[in-house]
Amino acid sequence: MVIKILITGGTFDKEYDELNGKLFFKDTHLPEILKLGRSNLSVEVRTLMMIDSLEMSDADRQIIINHCKQCKEDKIVITHGTDTMDITARLLGLAELDKTIVLTGAMIPYKFGSSDGLFNMGSALAFVQTLPKGVYVVMNGKYFNFDNVRKNKSSGIFEELK
Amino acid sequence: MVIKILITGGTFDKEYDELNGKLFFKDTHLPEILKLGRSNLSVEVRTLMMIDSLEMSDADRQIIINHCKQCKEDKIVITHGTDTMDITARLLGLAELDKTIVLTGAMIPYKFGSSDGLFNMGSALAFVQTLPKGVYVVMNGKYFNFDNVRKNKSSGIFEELK
Amino acid sequence: MVIKILITGGTFDKEYDELNGKLFFKDTHLPEILKLGRSNLSVEVRTLMMIDSLEMSDADRQIIINHCKQCKEDKIVITHGTDTMDITARLLGLAELDKTIVLTGAMIPYKFGSSDGLFNMGSALAFVQTLPKGVYVVMNGKYFNFDNVRKNKSSGIFEELK
Amino acid sequence: MVIKILITGGTFDKEYDELNGKLFFKDTHLPEILKLGRSNLSVEVRTLMMIDSLEMSDADRQIIINHCKQCKEDKIVITHGTDTMDITARLLGLAELDKTIVLTGAMIPYKFGSSDGLFNMGSALAFVQTLPKGVYVVMNGKYFNFDNVRKNKSSGIFEELK
Repeated sequence: MVIKILITGGTFDKEYDELNGKLFFKDTHLPEILKLGRSNLSVEVRTLMMIDSLEMSDADRQIIINHCKQCKEDKIVITHGTDTMDITARLLGLAELDKTIVLTGAMIPYKFGSSDGLFNMGSALAFVQTLPKGVYVVMNGKYFNFDNVRKNKSSGIFEELK
Repeated sequence: MVIKILITGGTFDKEYDELNGKLFFKDTHLPEILKLGRSNLSVEVRTLMMIDSLEMSDADRQIIINHCKQCKEDKIVITHGTDTMDITARLLGLAELDKTIVLTGAMIPYKFGSSDGLFNMGSALAFVQTLPKGVYVVMNGKYFNFDNVRKNKSSGIFEELK
Repeated sequence: MVIKILITGGTFDKEYDELNGKLFFKDTHLPEILKLGRSNLSVEVRTLMMIDSLEMSDADRQIIINHCKQCKEDKIVITHGTDTMDITARLLGLAELDKTIVLTGAMIPYKFGSSDGLFNMGSALAFVQTLPKGVYVVMNGKYFNFDNVRKNKSSGIFEELK
Repeated sequence: MVIKILITGGTFDKEYDELNGKLFFKDTHLPEILKLGRSNLSVEVRTLMMIDSLEMSDADRQIIINHCKQCKEDKIVITHGTDTMDITARLLGLAELDKTIVLTGAMIPYKFGSSDGLFNMGSALAFVQTLPKGVYVVMNGKYFNFDNVRKNKSSGIFEELK
């Protein structure tokens, strides 16, 4: 079994530019995260884009959906900014692919020491191996169906709609 | 749904004693790990012992089995030293409890910066929510049935027996 | 001997706001840094402001100079954003106080794991104990006289003017 | 000006062996520390030995003294285990070399996240540039003359004898 990991950016992969004091994207930290977790899973990592999810366009989302459709793997983890993760999840859910797709992200950049990224990636890789076909958001140790999830903007915690 | 987390020690919770230069156990870091992972799961944490798994006796294992039997939760995660995790898993499996029980641990102490503990706890908490009743070892991003797992002593990686 | 430590903000003390993804100031991390360094020095810490040094006004600089003048200690370390550290140093130098004053800062926030802050604070506290009366910038393991220093904007390294 | 850095091991450079759960020495972390501190000093690093200072023999100390004598630099920092740092300092002091020699170390291994090593190296490199010829121990933000220092075994803090 091979798990596909699609990278789209988000807080997960943000870094601090020490020359201008701004946050920016360079490369994904996913290989580092898998190594730190001593992961022994077979994975295929593919970077689709490196953007803040607030700047993700419909065209960007179409790229993600197309990759999920066309890749040969039927277990897919997508790293994604948390602000619009629910929107992308919903579109992926409506696409009705016969695959298990898990979106996850982080509230704090992986490079900043106190990140939840390593925990979330551990959860996401576990859920993608065991959940039935469908599209899920994985955050805060939980999984949510694509049509029943939102980020609570004031607490930063993901919760069910109803 | 409440997940029971039983603490038994292991590398996970080892610390460095700066006065004598030795590794030792003080308190479990589990609450810290759950906070770092922004876990929003309902958990009940109980420390049963704080020992190196090479020093775990049959009586210690009986304590673990008894707690798994008697607690009201049917989803249980046990943190455990990696060296004899397979032995405890086997005994728990033979006890044939009608629960989902996941044993996990770490190769590097949580406090040492480069630990796999946060990743493993993310995986373990996800697997315990989704795997059918049974006893499992969760390491390296994978789950293993209690009767088909060992730690490869030269690589430190968990693998199937056959 | 008591060393005065004046806090003005700068990269040193920036944190990541996980709700809006922006960098911000909360409290100084100086007590944490001194504890991590197992410092046994007698220090008096005073927060004067918490600002990015690009936003430091003449009035802000006057506050810093006044505090250096009026405090009873004659060894002073000032944490300061790196972008305009040389400007504040120059003004302090022209004030011709009969004290040893050291300005230092960080290229990466202390909370981001890969910070130079702990190293710089170690240097600054050592230099302030041993350098003769005067005003100095301490960065990159070196000390610079107030009238012979600038930050190289493209490399981020502090260097002499001539 | 070039600063010589002599490596002898000590807690500073200890690592955790994840296969056997023991602490061990591999390579020095000094280049990493200097990079993290964004040090721009000219240094010459030389590893003399990699040992726990409790195991340092008279012959080992003679090697250290010989290197201090023979090297062309007159500013030397020595990383050393804290348990017998005062003994080596005393022997170096009695050798009456016309150089500034600073011994420093760490209470927690550099790799364990919460180390004082970065702070101590920042101090040591600053003190070696500014103190007059002599032999010093630098710990806890302070410098001590070679003939007036000991490690308080119960607090782990360095203090004057009188």
